[in-house]
Amino acid sequence: MTNNQTIVALATPNGTGAIGIIRLSGPEAITIANSVFKGKDLTKQPSHTIHFGSIADGDIILDEVLVSLFVGPRSYTRENVVEISCHGSAYIIESIIKLLIKKGARSAKAGEFTLRAFLNGQLDLSQAEAVADLIASNSKASQQVALNQLRGGFSNQLQALRDQLVQFASLIELELDFAEEDVEFANRDQLKKLINEINRVIGNLIRSFELGNAIKQGVNTVIAGRPNAGKSTLLNALLNEERAIVSHIPGTTRDTIEEVLNIQGINFRLIDTAGIREATDAIEQLGVQRTMEKISQSALLIYLFDAAQITIEELQQDIESLQKPGINMLLVANKSDLPEQSSTLSDFRASGLSDFLSISAKERLHIDELKNKIYTSAIKDQLTGDETLVTNIRHLEALQKTEEALIRVLSGMDSVTSDFLSMDIKQALHYLGEITGAVTTDDLLENIFSKFCIGK
Amino acid sequence: MTNNQTIVALATPNGTGAIGIIRLSGPEAITIANSVFKGKDLTKQPSHTIHFGSIADGDIILDEVLVSLFVGPRSYTRENVVEISCHGSAYIIESIIKLLIKKGARSAKAGEFTLRAFLNGQLDLSQAEAVADLIASNSKASQQVALNQLRGGFSNQLQALRDQLVQFASLIELELDFAEEDVEFANRDQLKKLINEINRVIGNLIRSFELGNAIKQGVNTVIAGRPNAGKSTLLNALLNEERAIVSHIPGTTRDTIEEVLNIQGINFRLIDTAGIREATDAIEQLGVQRTMEKISQSALLIYLFDAAQITIEELQQDIESLQKPGINMLLVANKSDLPEQSSTLSDFRASGLSDFLSISAKERLHIDELKNKIYTSAIKDQLTGDETLVTNIRHLEALQKTEEALIRVLSGMDSVTSDFLSMDIKQALHYLGEITGAVTTDDLLENIFSKFCIGK
Repeated sequence: MTNNQTIVALATPNGTGAIGIIRLSGPEAITIANSVFKGKDLTKQPSHTIHFGSIADGDIILDEVLVSLFVGPRSYTRENVVEISCHGSAYIIESIIKLLIKKGARSAKAGEFTLRAFLNGQLDLSQAEAVADLIASNSKASQQVALNQLRGGFSNQLQALRDQLVQFASLIELELDFAEEDVEFANRDQLKKLINEINRVIGNLIRSFELGNAIKQGVNTVIAGRPNAGKSTLLNALLNEERAIVSHIPGTTRDTIEEVLNIQGINFRLIDTAGIREATDAIEQLGVQRTMEKISQSALLIYLFDAAQITIEELQQDIESLQKPGINMLLVANKSDLPEQSSTLSDFRASGLSDFLSISAKERLHIDELKNKIYTSAIKDQLTGDETLVTNIRHLEALQKTEEALIRVLSGMDSVTSDFLSMDIKQALHYLGEITGAVTTDDLLENIFSKFCIGK
Repeated sequence: MTNNQTIVALATPNGTGAIGIIRLSGPEAITIANSVFKGKDLTKQPSHTIHFGSIADGDIILDEVLVSLFVGPRSYTRENVVEISCHGSAYIIESIIKLLIKKGARSAKAGEFTLRAFLNGQLDLSQAEAVADLIASNSKASQQVALNQLRGGFSNQLQALRDQLVQFASLIELELDFAEEDVEFANRDQLKKLINEINRVIGNLIRSFELGNAIKQGVNTVIAGRPNAGKSTLLNALLNEERAIVSHIPGTTRDTIEEVLNIQGINFRLIDTAGIREATDAIEQLGVQRTMEKISQSALLIYLFDAAQITIEELQQDIESLQKPGINMLLVANKSDLPEQSSTLSDFRASGLSDFLSISAKERLHIDELKNKIYTSAIKDQLTGDETLVTNIRHLEALQKTEEALIRVLSGMDSVTSDFLSMDIKQALHYLGEITGAVTTDDLLENIFSKFCIGK
């Protein structure tokens, strides 16, 4: 990957809009732009200024444009950057990009601007990934987590961990230099304590992934229950409260995902398949597998029942058959507005079933309480404000590999020689470094940046 | 329509992209932006500068952005304009726009930025319309015509015409002042000459609409002929030559419009329906109406025949039944590579059918000649370089009404009194003024700008 070429791409979405922004980055960005610009001499203008003029291919004017100049290193990529704001016609945009390529630029690959920002030290790797997350963010929480990561919160914590490990490693290395003398520079008890501390923090980060991922991707939430339990009424009750921020999600999963409910900035995708609706009737029948698949893909299951229409045995049987590891289940008794419910619920409680919430979907009673429960089931006690959340599967894997390497260090500490210890520590350092980009390979970079959109 | 409000809208297309541009315009644009911007004090920065910082709602950072400042009147609308370049997430864009609205901006209506540019004298009406045409342009020719109009070519010519008319009108007005004395300030012969001259120019503009419209909208082109005439081969031959600029047009018309062929910057939409393919068999059958409808919506009909498989009588019958007013027909004899063709074609010529082009679609012989013929049939001799083309149906109607008014002036010149003459001239002035915006009504403006996209 060389930085000596000047790259060009459309930075705004495809489609017709008022304006389109074409972005150039590289050593020749300003001179190439200047060679097609009729107006002021762009090479003589200061950074962070905007200039009106036209883009011309010889005598043929392609468009009237505004050109924004960013003289490196005061730019996103730390290279010279030019942004051409033209009329938002696909034809005009294509013509200008073609012309810039003719004048010496080349088409940027996906994520190449951000890759350059990373290679030039403007961003570390987890910050670069945060840019992609920020662009993809679709809720307040996912945007805040990505922004926090972009602003370095995540990287800083990892860097601090890594520094501690480096210190550890250097002491062990020192021992290797004096291997014949059998000295111990690294106090093993202190090192154990340090590794345990590091593992504690890494463990927290690993555990934060469940929440981080929920925030980034949204939480799949199935509403299940026997027919006439009031599931549709509940869906409406949940959605109507905040209809303004309810949205339909189009696309391939449309047939299973029905509505998105945003609670305190987190998206819950309420899934309400026909299969689930009939789940209790069909539990031992043909549809059961498909129903269970939907549930197994969910993080949260809201089981709704009407106490007047179900026995405690049927209820317990349903709960048992629906319960899956890794899925939170919320038990909700509906129709609390009906007078006969309260005595039945007392009976249920007497039989040992107490951990349920009683609501009336129809009368909108205790719906906010239910929402709080839904939110809490996803968030638990983890979201306190500025904490670091892991949202990226690549980071999770690197953290898990770090943890494994550190456990190897711990278990081998008293039995293996310093060179084996050193190797395990170096591996842990390697995996941590992969997150911030202190350690990179071309494959890794290719893998990360190819998922970006072109123009970023 | 008041300009004292500050308006805001997304100026880039909807969808996920690297960046999105949010545009503010109005007296408070800079102070509103400044109230949510963490960074330099934007109210103290010079025009045409760019500033990095973040957009914050109280303590909550929404995004890191670049803010471009345009201090009125040095802006598109001549008002204060701020463009916020943020990460291209729909959620972030919506959050920022909502925040700006909370701080005093209001959502811009479609075309409202350009409407303000017009109301503030930055553009005349035909230039404002050219902005919309430019955004919609999809070929070199349509982009050049729109750009020419934006750069004032069209308006200037109309303005010159209108000035001549105003001069005429003022002389007649002068006669009204001296009506009792029965003087003639306006020499009637000179005035006739002048009006004839104006009508000649207006006539050219009116006639340019067919071409202007073809350039703007593309030319619907039907390929017809009996089965096995080689129509599909011809379609491939026409398209393969310049496959790079062939494109599929998606959407509602997809089933009838097959491929777009770009010849010298003009788009020809090649229509090749099954109906047309069977046209000669079905001419007197049930499918005929639908087939004829397609043809009647076309500007160009390429009738392809295989001389070895058709008699001169059948051929003349086909031609007669397919010929419609307003549709150019090109006769093309295919399969010139086959030896038996040339003698048959000689016979056809002897029978008086001579105005056809002989090609071989299969061997790609004379395809460029056919393309030239297709191009010429649309362009005729009109496209010489910098000429003014009318592309807008509104302009066409105003020009036609101008022409009618001027013809009334001419016909009444010797018979009616000066006050009637004056009235007809004023009407002609009115219609011409409608094009450039010298004469406007709210309805007219509403009608024009509501067709713009939001954010322009």
